[in-house]
Amino acid sequence: MDNIIERGRLYDYYGGLLTGHQRQIYEAVVYDDMSLSEIAAEHDISRQGVHDLIKRCDKQLARYEEALGLIKRDKNVDSKLDEIALLSKDKKIIHIIDEIKDML
Amino acid sequence: MDNIIERGRLYDYYGGLLTGHQRQIYEAVVYDDMSLSEIAAEHDISRQGVHDLIKRCDKQLARYEEALGLIKRDKNVDSKLDEIALLSKDKKIIHIIDEIKDML
Repeated sequence: MDNIIERGRLYDYYGGLLTGHQRQIYEAVVYDDMSLSEIAAEHDISRQGVHDLIKRCDKQLARYEEALGLIKRDKNVDSKLDEIALLSKDKKIIHIIDEIKDML
Repeated sequence: MDNIIERGRLYDYYGGLLTGHQRQIYEAVVYDDMSLSEIAAEHDISRQGVHDLIKRCDKQLARYEEALGLIKRDKNVDSKLDEIALLSKDKKIIHIIDEIKDML
């Protein structure tokens, strides 16, 4: 789970199922790239505590995808949209495809 | 939450987050249309216990959608696909749109 894109994607989909506290710390580390020590000091918990929380969140997010498979499904939808884009010469259609891709 | 379609849709998306026990009973009542008393006897719990479990699951499923909004998002994707279908005369594109709609 060292892949930042995969992490970001899991968080995009399932972050809403984490607690507010988890989200705050997770975002600080994964998105704002703050160090564990910085976060620890800011939230008055141990560095190890931050580390464990992040690990737990990663596992939880991965389990949500395992249970629901929505990221995998959307990857397939995305491929199908590419097929349409290849077949179509209509600019309006290409534009709508872009809109859908932005939603996924 | 008496709408069977909405219930089915919520379950399709988020049922994977319920426990196996919850799923078994929820499906028996909501999909197989068994009576609460039948399920209660089969699982050796009270009729009230089944009733409460179903209610709790309904609430939980609704909360997942509230937190993640993926059903709402997919409804928007579906509308956009309809727009493409209206614009396109290519049978191959229409076919791919159907495939995508089946995934949603």
